[in-house]
Amino acid sequence: MSILVVGSIALDTVETPYGNASDSPGGSALYFSAAASHFSSVKVVGVVGKDFDFSLIDFLKAREVNFDGLMVEEGQTFRWGGRYKKNMNDRDTLFTYLNVFESFKPNIPPHYQDTPFIFLANIDPELQLNVLREIKNPRLTVLDTMNFWISGKRAELENVLHRVDIVILNDEEIREYTGENNLFEAGKALLKVGPHALVIKKGENGALLMTDNGYFLAPAYPIDRVVDPTGAGDSFAGGFLGYLATCKSIDEMAFRQAVVYGTIVASYTVEDFSFSKLREISRDDIDDRYVKFQQMLAF
Amino acid sequence: MSILVVGSIALDTVETPYGNASDSPGGSALYFSAAASHFSSVKVVGVVGKDFDFSLIDFLKAREVNFDGLMVEEGQTFRWGGRYKKNMNDRDTLFTYLNVFESFKPNIPPHYQDTPFIFLANIDPELQLNVLREIKNPRLTVLDTMNFWISGKRAELENVLHRVDIVILNDEEIREYTGENNLFEAGKALLKVGPHALVIKKGENGALLMTDNGYFLAPAYPIDRVVDPTGAGDSFAGGFLGYLATCKSIDEMAFRQAVVYGTIVASYTVEDFSFSKLREISRDDIDDRYVKFQQMLAF
Repeated sequence: MSILVVGSIALDTVETPYGNASDSPGGSALYFSAAASHFSSVKVVGVVGKDFDFSLIDFLKAREVNFDGLMVEEGQTFRWGGRYKKNMNDRDTLFTYLNVFESFKPNIPPHYQDTPFIFLANIDPELQLNVLREIKNPRLTVLDTMNFWISGKRAELENVLHRVDIVILNDEEIREYTGENNLFEAGKALLKVGPHALVIKKGENGALLMTDNGYFLAPAYPIDRVVDPTGAGDSFAGGFLGYLATCKSIDEMAFRQAVVYGTIVASYTVEDFSFSKLREISRDDIDDRYVKFQQMLAF
Repeated sequence: MSILVVGSIALDTVETPYGNASDSPGGSALYFSAAASHFSSVKVVGVVGKDFDFSLIDFLKAREVNFDGLMVEEGQTFRWGGRYKKNMNDRDTLFTYLNVFESFKPNIPPHYQDTPFIFLANIDPELQLNVLREIKNPRLTVLDTMNFWISGKRAELENVLHRVDIVILNDEEIREYTGENNLFEAGKALLKVGPHALVIKKGENGALLMTDNGYFLAPAYPIDRVVDPTGAGDSFAGGFLGYLATCKSIDEMAFRQAVVYGTIVASYTVEDFSFSKLREISRDDIDDRYVKFQQMLAF
């Protein structure tokens, strides 16, 4: 089944210990699409400037990613620049030019409004709420956010949290949101706000799924050479929801398998700049690592 | 089968956000013994001062921990004091009084010298090497160390690394030893030095086993309320080696199961001060969590 993603489209300039990339395609909506399209069809709502080179995303169109909801505005595309430190976790933001993204008002085309799976990537929670209001009876809604909204628009964020099925956050974000240092306690506190399930991303330390049925613990897939961690979180979400959209029954086991697919897809993302690797691989490559991962966890 | 442990015996004064404990029994040899004795018999080589209250370790004697190798010297027992920060990972050392431990020269009693399983806890690598020389045909030797020796006695440490079967380190230590930030690359570099297997402890983020057969990834067992992380690493080693000493065949699968047992035992350790919890629980409690852990990892 089909997934609607609402998020950013950016041109990223990234420096890591392994090299540099300039104005390469990124942003949550594109990373998500590049990942999810290995599993399901995707519909994108986002905005770019007149400068955007559409040939960068041709391969996504070939994979059933629909861009009818992409607005092209006068001005420049959102640009972000960052430099990763040697540990590949910490990064300095060198610049953020929101450009056309600054006044982004998601406009959901009528033929998108009955999409069964919804991913609200990290944007202003007020906009996320507006999107939810335009969607008719979604089967599953998933939300991402970031510290900026947790501290800046907490009430609005809580409003959206009441209305979504699943939340995906990283460890720092959920600690900040709940004020709890212990992740399991933090997770329980967040689940009380409304969502049925919660995925806590821990970067190189894997992910944790919490539902009413308990915990699922997934390490990260081992990568010898992390070239660029940008987009790992959004492509995790893409693998996660992309897989769920193929499941007949969305139950605890499906959630767990989806976390593993998210983990595997993210492991490919970080092996190269932008989504070069996600473009190159096939669903077979993903399933290959899935089987290897099972072997690495057996005891 | 039986395990010989050579390490420290201390009286710890610990402050954590959950409370304080003063002069409570600790040190690598005791934490190891309190953990391993749930599986196998243990022989301890260590030193205490005349002030040591032996009733603190009566319960270990009842569990087939032999203290014939414990020297009682004129003076005070090793004392350590520390304060954990809110995140429970970082800690400040408030004091370290080595006392009788400063001049510790392990003396292996003749009836200990054919013990099949050896745990060299974190002590001066020169002393670790001396111990190895006194042991006759051990079946399996396991080594722990710390940053202090990595930077201060690197050549001596390398000498011991050539001679042991398994090394247990934490993530910071192996990064420092190898100069590699990526844990998998760091692990490969360390395995080239000599050991057949390597366990990298990552605290609340679990553990990683590396052998010639590949990787085994184990998350940490979820604990809602970590009261005192002191001794988690040594009790991990105790569960790990304690279980291995019960295995007929010491193969890849046994190593993996041993990592899980180490994980489970450490999860009990951190739930209370000193080894209060390790004293209280039974092997059934450990197996209980083992089964729950399997369920938390299934997908």
